[in-house]
Amino acid sequence: MTTLLHHIGFLGFDVFGTVVDWRSGVARAARPFLERYDIDVDPFDFADEWRSLYQPAMQAVRSGERPWVRLDVLQRENLETVLARHGADFGAIAGADLADLNRAWERLDPWPDAVEGLTRLKQRFPIGALSNSHIAGMLHLSRFGRLPWDAILGAEIARSYKPQPQAYLKSAETVGLPPHEVALVAAHNSDLQAARACGFRTVFVRRPQEHGPKQRTDLAPEHDWDVVADNLIELADLLGCPQLSR
Amino acid sequence: MTTLLHHIGFLGFDVFGTVVDWRSGVARAARPFLERYDIDVDPFDFADEWRSLYQPAMQAVRSGERPWVRLDVLQRENLETVLARHGADFGAIAGADLADLNRAWERLDPWPDAVEGLTRLKQRFPIGALSNSHIAGMLHLSRFGRLPWDAILGAEIARSYKPQPQAYLKSAETVGLPPHEVALVAAHNSDLQAARACGFRTVFVRRPQEHGPKQRTDLAPEHDWDVVADNLIELADLLGCPQLSR
Repeated sequence: MTTLLHHIGFLGFDVFGTVVDWRSGVARAARPFLERYDIDVDPFDFADEWRSLYQPAMQAVRSGERPWVRLDVLQRENLETVLARHGADFGAIAGADLADLNRAWERLDPWPDAVEGLTRLKQRFPIGALSNSHIAGMLHLSRFGRLPWDAILGAEIARSYKPQPQAYLKSAETVGLPPHEVALVAAHNSDLQAARACGFRTVFVRRPQEHGPKQRTDLAPEHDWDVVADNLIELADLLGCPQLSR
Repeated sequence: MTTLLHHIGFLGFDVFGTVVDWRSGVARAARPFLERYDIDVDPFDFADEWRSLYQPAMQAVRSGERPWVRLDVLQRENLETVLARHGADFGAIAGADLADLNRAWERLDPWPDAVEGLTRLKQRFPIGALSNSHIAGMLHLSRFGRLPWDAILGAEIARSYKPQPQAYLKSAETVGLPPHEVALVAAHNSDLQAARACGFRTVFVRRPQEHGPKQRTDLAPEHDWDVVADNLIELADLLGCPQLSR
């Protein structure tokens, strides 16, 4: 059991990549769409391309270049950008199919350890999503994967995208705690770095397959994070959370 | 099964009185405090007095007389008001005891049907708190009583107290639905009336003991609410939610 345990009143989780496998889920949703509309791109490459526009789109909001918009709006714009690159004929694509594909981010499988790990962690700590997702998207994703959050915090509550400080600080304030009593659990060093700068405790979870077999980033902790775990079940072990009764 | 079922994408619940028994819980928390500080008032009367200041305090925010503040701030002010009326010696009262008593609202028992009813309803509908409570208070209350919310919405999200329209409308917007696809579940006719005026569907739950044995208000539905139920298990039955496997 780590000393982290004694100070923490809330565990906030990055979700895309840390708790759920976005790449497989987006590719799974894209495959029939790409076939139906005869768009010639591998579904995993499509997922990677769509994901690659995620940070730049949020950056336009972070920089103040455009006012706050929810993540589903950015994801939809990015989807159309990627489809246009591959020569999609928007006149032929049913609006409902496009809207449905945009909801792929609400139907992503949790990593195999996630539900058991979260359920165990929840026995001892309040747990919540601390994601850049909009609340409705997180709600649907949580129901899809049976993620047992106590609360959904993050970007929409703060009207500010991570890694901007407000996203972390407003989440801590909303659960009524000072930053040093909240831990961020994330598979991304940059997210943890920003959280630590706000005073959060930090938990790195290794997700070496998040970006597929050729992943080069975030393979290892790059700073002395408070806790490092291979998955959320190991994290529950490290934090002394009891096993589930079967 | 009622026709309500076919249109609803989210069930939002009033919590104090509808899901949890605030009067018994506040009296339970107040009893040892009142004894320790020799304050001569029956704990149930104390709970009623504290509760009676709830609407006027929110009204000052609704009217714009004072800026938005979270419910725990109002409850703390009201607590001090009631204690002062009964001659409390604030110099003698430990700050920690006062803060702890204010958190009585986070340690209220669910009505006996609530957890089973919510768990069944959750199998078919996304469910959430649509309360005037602050999010942290609702989070603690939910963990105390094991209320299985998918999301916590309501006043703090909207920075607006029910029955102001914004509290309902912002909650619906946050879950990504038009008002007519959201239902409010409440034991209070006035709450349902305001929700209906915003376009919500309405579910009245009878809680004839919320204010104790002498309750005179909200004993019956005063309008043609879409659904009326005696408790949340009956509501799950009416909405065709399966029994829980044991």
